[in-house]
Amino acid sequence: MLFAVQMTVNIPHDLDPEVRADTVAREKAYAQELQRDGTWKHLWRIAGTYSNLSVFEVADGDALNDVIWGLPLFPYMDIEVTALARHPSAI
Amino acid sequence: MLFAVQMTVNIPHDLDPEVRADTVAREKAYAQELQRDGTWKHLWRIAGTYSNLSVFEVADGDALNDVIWGLPLFPYMDIEVTALARHPSAI
Amino acid sequence: MLFAVQMTVNIPHDLDPEVRADTVAREKAYAQELQRDGTWKHLWRIAGTYSNLSVFEVADGDALNDVIWGLPLFPYMDIEVTALARHPSAI
Amino acid sequence: MLFAVQMTVNIPHDLDPEVRADTVAREKAYAQELQRDGTWKHLWRIAGTYSNLSVFEVADGDALNDVIWGLPLFPYMDIEVTALARHPSAI
Amino acid sequence: MLFAVQMTVNIPHDLDPEVRADTVAREKAYAQELQRDGTWKHLWRIAGTYSNLSVFEVADGDALNDVIWGLPLFPYMDIEVTALARHPSAI
Amino acid sequence: MLFAVQMTVNIPHDLDPEVRADTVAREKAYAQELQRDGTWKHLWRIAGTYSNLSVFEVADGDALNDVIWGLPLFPYMDIEVTALARHPSAI
Amino acid sequence: MLFAVQMTVNIPHDLDPEVRADTVAREKAYAQELQRDGTWKHLWRIAGTYSNLSVFEVADGDALNDVIWGLPLFPYMDIEVTALARHPSAI
Amino acid sequence: MLFAVQMTVNIPHDLDPEVRADTVAREKAYAQELQRDGTWKHLWRIAGTYSNLSVFEVADGDALNDVIWGLPLFPYMDIEVTALARHPSAI
Amino acid sequence: MLFAVQMTVNIPHDLDPEVRADTVAREKAYAQELQRDGTWKHLWRIAGTYSNLSVFEVADGDALNDVIWGLPLFPYMDIEVTALARHPSAI
Amino acid sequence: MLFAVQMTVNIPHDLDPEVRADTVAREKAYAQELQRDGTWKHLWRIAGTYSNLSVFEVADGDALNDVIWGLPLFPYMDIEVTALARHPSAI
Repeated sequence: MLFAVQMTVNIPHDLDPEVRADTVAREKAYAQELQRDGTWKHLWRIAGTYSNLSVFEVADGDALNDVIWGLPLFPYMDIEVTALARHPSAI
Repeated sequence: MLFAVQMTVNIPHDLDPEVRADTVAREKAYAQELQRDGTWKHLWRIAGTYSNLSVFEVADGDALNDVIWGLPLFPYMDIEVTALARHPSAI
Repeated sequence: MLFAVQMTVNIPHDLDPEVRADTVAREKAYAQELQRDGTWKHLWRIAGTYSNLSVFEVADGDALNDVIWGLPLFPYMDIEVTALARHPSAI
Repeated sequence: MLFAVQMTVNIPHDLDPEVRADTVAREKAYAQELQRDGTWKHLWRIAGTYSNLSVFEVADGDALNDVIWGLPLFPYMDIEVTALARHPSAI
Repeated sequence: MLFAVQMTVNIPHDLDPEVRADTVAREKAYAQELQRDGTWKHLWRIAGTYSNLSVFEVADGDALNDVIWGLPLFPYMDIEVTALARHPSAI
Repeated sequence: MLFAVQMTVNIPHDLDPEVRADTVAREKAYAQELQRDGTWKHLWRIAGTYSNLSVFEVADGDALNDVIWGLPLFPYMDIEVTALARHPSAI
Repeated sequence: MLFAVQMTVNIPHDLDPEVRADTVAREKAYAQELQRDGTWKHLWRIAGTYSNLSVFEVADGDALNDVIWGLPLFPYMDIEVTALARHPSAI
Repeated sequence: MLFAVQMTVNIPHDLDPEVRADTVAREKAYAQELQRDGTWKHLWRIAGTYSNLSVFEVADGDALNDVIWGLPLFPYMDIEVTALARHPSAI
Repeated sequence: MLFAVQMTVNIPHDLDPEVRADTVAREKAYAQELQRDGTWKHLWRIAGTYSNLSVFEVADGDALNDVIWGLPLFPYMDIEVTALARHPSAI
Repeated sequence: MLFAVQMTVNIPHDLDPEVRADTVAREKAYAQELQRDGTWKHLWRIAGTYSNLSVFEVADGDALNDVIWGLPLFPYMDIEVTALARHPSAI
C-alpha cells in the first residue's frame, strides 16, 4: 500500500551542533537505505523549504509507523500522512 | 489495516425529498451490511452533529476507497481519513 | 458514555532524559491499567506521528477530565475531545 | 453532565418564507420548553451574530444528540459541542 | 453585561516549580473571590484539557479587561472573549 | 462601551436585482442615521474588499446586538465582534 | 521541473447529469493522454475522498498552468500546487 | 504606494454563459488599460489556479479600493490585500 | 492614508525583568508621542487580551513600516495590517 | 520561471547578538548580490511586519531551492512558495 507523507523539519536553534550534524547524517543514510529496498519510493524536496514530500510503499499502517518513527530527525518533525489508493484514471 | 474516518454530511436543502429519503435509507442498509461483515468495525455519532466517527478494517487504501466511494451519501460528504497503527501501549 | 480523544505529544527536546524516560514509562503503565479496567476502550497510534486516537468509556465529563489529567504526559499534550453518541445505523 | 454548544444558523436566502417563519417559531417553542424542564440551562445570543452559546444538562452524549437533532433549525446549523467538567476552582 | 471567555493555560515546562505552585494557588483564590462577588458567574473545566469556559458579568469592556489582566496565570494564557447578549428565546 | 465589528458582505449573485438595490440603499440610510446619533463612531472600508471595519459605542452587548441585527444587509453578512477597552497608553 | 498538485473535485449536485458524465469521461481521456506522454508522471487517489495527488513534469509554471486549465473538471476543482526540487538524500 | 493583491475567481457554474463571457472580456480590457497607465504594475497567474497575484501602484487605500471595485469580476472574487513598503535590502 | 493594525504581544517568560520593564515603558512613551502628533489616531485594548487594535494615519506603506518597526515591543509582536479606505456610507 | 516567495523572519530573542548582527548583514549582502544578477527580481517589505514578498526568476524548483537554502536567515524563516505563470491579460 502507498502513503504520501509530508515532513517539515524544525531543528531547535540551540541544539548541540554535533548532535545536529550526526542526526542529519544518520537521517540521510536511513533514507537512502529505505530507497534502495523500495520502501521509500519517492523523496522530493518541497522547493524553498525544509520539508519533503515522500511516498512510501509498505504493508500497512503499522509498517509505515515503524519506518517514520525510525527517522533520526523524527523528534524534530511535523508530519502529515495521506493514505493513497489506485486512481481510476491511472494507466 | 485500520483507518479512522470522520464523515460530515451536508445534504443540500433543495434536494428532492424522495431522493433524500431513498439515499439515507440505502446508506443505513449499506452501513449495516459492512458492520455485519466486519469491515465497518466502529460507527459512532459525533454527538450533536450530522457527522460520524468510524473505524474500518480493510486490506489497504484501495479497499478503503472502494468502501467509502460506495456510500450512497458520499456525494454529500466531507471526509477525513486517518491511517491507524498498533499503539505500543495497547494491550 | 463514550468520548473520542486525540492526543498529540510534544515533549520539549531539552527535557531531562531521565524525567522523560520515567514519564513515558508511567504513561504506559497508566494506559494499560485503564485498558484493563475498561475505561480506555480503544488506543490506536495515528500512523507516522506521535499522536493517538483513543476512545474512553466513562460516566461523564468529570470522569473523563480526571482520567486525562491523570496522564503522566498530560503537560506535554495537545488534546482534542469529541463527545460520541449512538449512531442510528450502528448494529 | 454539562455540554457547551455553539450554534451558528445559516438559513439559505432562497428558503420559502413560510417554511422559514414556521421553522423559527417551532425553534423558539422547542427552546423554551427545554429551558423550562432544565435541559437547556443557559441560552445566550453571541452579540451581533446569528449564533448562540448554550449550556445543556443531559445524561450523556446520546441525550445531547437527541436534543440537538430535535432542533427545527438543525438542518441549517453549524454546531460545535464542548464537553464540560467541574472546575477545581469553582465554588 | 455578560462575556464568555475561554482561557487555555500553557505554563512553560521550565518555569520554577515554586513560582508555578504559588501562581496556581493565587489564581484559585482570585477566581473564588470573584465568584463570591458575582463577577465570575460560571466557571467550567473544558473536559480533558487545561482550559476553562467562563462567563463574567461586568459593567463593560474596561471592567472585563481589568478582571482578566488580574488573573495570576494571565501571562501563560491564550484567551478568547465573546460578547453575549440576551437571546430572544431565553426565558 | 466600544466594540470593533468587521462585516463582510456576500450578496448571492442570483438575488433579485431590485431587492438588492433596495437593501443596499436602506443599509446606507441606516448607517448614516446611526453615525449621526453617535452609535456608529467609525466606518471604514477595508480597501479592495466588500468588508468594513466599524467601531460602535453602545451600552452593552444587547444594544450592539440590536444595532447589528437591524442592518438591512445582516442576512448576507459574516460578522466578527471584538470587545474593546481603554488602553493604558491611550492619551 | 516537477510539481505536486492536489486536486479536490466538488461537482455541484444540480449539474445536468449528461454534462457531468461527459465532463468526467473527457477528464479521464485527458489524464490518460498526459500520462502516456510523460507529463502526468504520478496520479494517485487520496483514499476515501474525491481528491487526487498528482506529480507533473513540465517545463515551467506556464506549462503547468496550461495543463491544469485544460482539465475538463477544472471549473469544479480546488487546486493546491507545490513546486518540487531534488532532495539531497534522494538516490 | 504599492499593494500586493491576490484575487481568486469563483464564477458560479450556473451563471448565464453570455454574462460570463462578457464579464471576462471586460475584465481583460480593464486590466490591460490599468497596466498601460502604470497602475497595475505586475499581473501574474498563480500557476494551476484561477487566481492571480498582482501589484498595484496607487496613491492610497481609497485609490486601491476604487481600482479593485472597478473590476468586472469583483463580485465573484475572494481578495487579499497586502500593503507593501520599501525593503531595506532592496537595491 | 489610514491603516488598522492589530498587535498581539508575546513577551517570553524568561526575558530579563529589567529589560522587560524598560521596553514596556519606552513602548508607552513612543505610543503617546505618536498619538500627540496625530500619527497614532486610535489605540484600543482588545478586552481581556495583551493585544491592541490601532488606527494609524500615515503617508503610505513606507511610513507605516517605519512607525511599526520603531515600536520597542516590535520583536515580541504578531502584527496584522489592514489597509483602509473611505466607506461610501461614511458621513 | 517566476516564483513568488513570502518569507517571515522569527529570530529567537535569546540568539547571541553578534551572531544575529552578522547573519542579518550577510543576508543583506546575499539579497543585493542576487538582485544585481537578476535572480531576485522584486523584494518588498510587507508593511509593518518582519516579512517580505519577493519574486525570483530561476530555471526551476532546484534552482529556487538552492537560492532560498542559501539565505543566511533561512533557519529562522517561515517560507511560502507560489509558482507563477504568465497571465492571459498581462501586456
